[in-house]
Amino acid sequence: MEVSRILETCLYVTDLDQADDFYQRVLGLKSFSRLDQRHLFFRCGNQVLLLFKASETQKDSSEVPSHGMSGQGHVAFSMTETDLERWRTHLQECNVPIEREITWANGGKSIYFRDPSGNSLELVTPETWEL
Amino acid sequence: MEVSRILETCLYVTDLDQADDFYQRVLGLKSFSRLDQRHLFFRCGNQVLLLFKASETQKDSSEVPSHGMSGQGHVAFSMTETDLERWRTHLQECNVPIEREITWANGGKSIYFRDPSGNSLELVTPETWEL
Repeated sequence: MEVSRILETCLYVTDLDQADDFYQRVLGLKSFSRLDQRHLFFRCGNQVLLLFKASETQKDSSEVPSHGMSGQGHVAFSMTETDLERWRTHLQECNVPIEREITWANGGKSIYFRDPSGNSLELVTPETWEL
Repeated sequence: MEVSRILETCLYVTDLDQADDFYQRVLGLKSFSRLDQRHLFFRCGNQVLLLFKASETQKDSSEVPSHGMSGQGHVAFSMTETDLERWRTHLQECNVPIEREITWANGGKSIYFRDPSGNSLELVTPETWEL
């Protein structure tokens, strides 16, 4: 047996309103589900990005098994090299500081920045992973 | 600007040897990169699954911006409904307890289990998310 596709990727955030604004305005994602102070779900291509408040998902009372983390997570989104300059400009216009830019040994490129909860987000060219 | 694909999904683990064995044997993934006690990377279709030891990635000395979480994360992998029974059998043969099974209102199905670090893993039919 072999899994061949990741369907749900999670991050934990401290404020869902801030997150909703940020992921919509900066990353162009639209939330399709929100449950009070528990979660905010986005579609991203044929995957979903799930943002949770760990204080809620760590409770055993949920229908789904408990989970939840504290600290700063990491997710990387695909970016074409053609769009790199446009992303750089867009992040600046959104007042999102670029924390680092890296050109990898194989020519792949990454831009790193933070969401309002401090999670490390990355835009990366698929070539970086030979994908 | 709009992101349309998640390329890197992360989990944090406490023991890379245990994780390497588990993700290979139970989920059929093969690691293509390992750095000592820092990380273990797997390809999964056209994405990558990155397992990190948070104690290492939280250090500021790394080439990439620091990140790292403690607690129990969550990732879901795609499963066809046809394969559900085979996955159930496979998990039992691997001595991995099934923590919960859910049939969602729209007919989608999920199986939940844990990795050796306690992360909540899920096999889910894409129909659950209307994907």
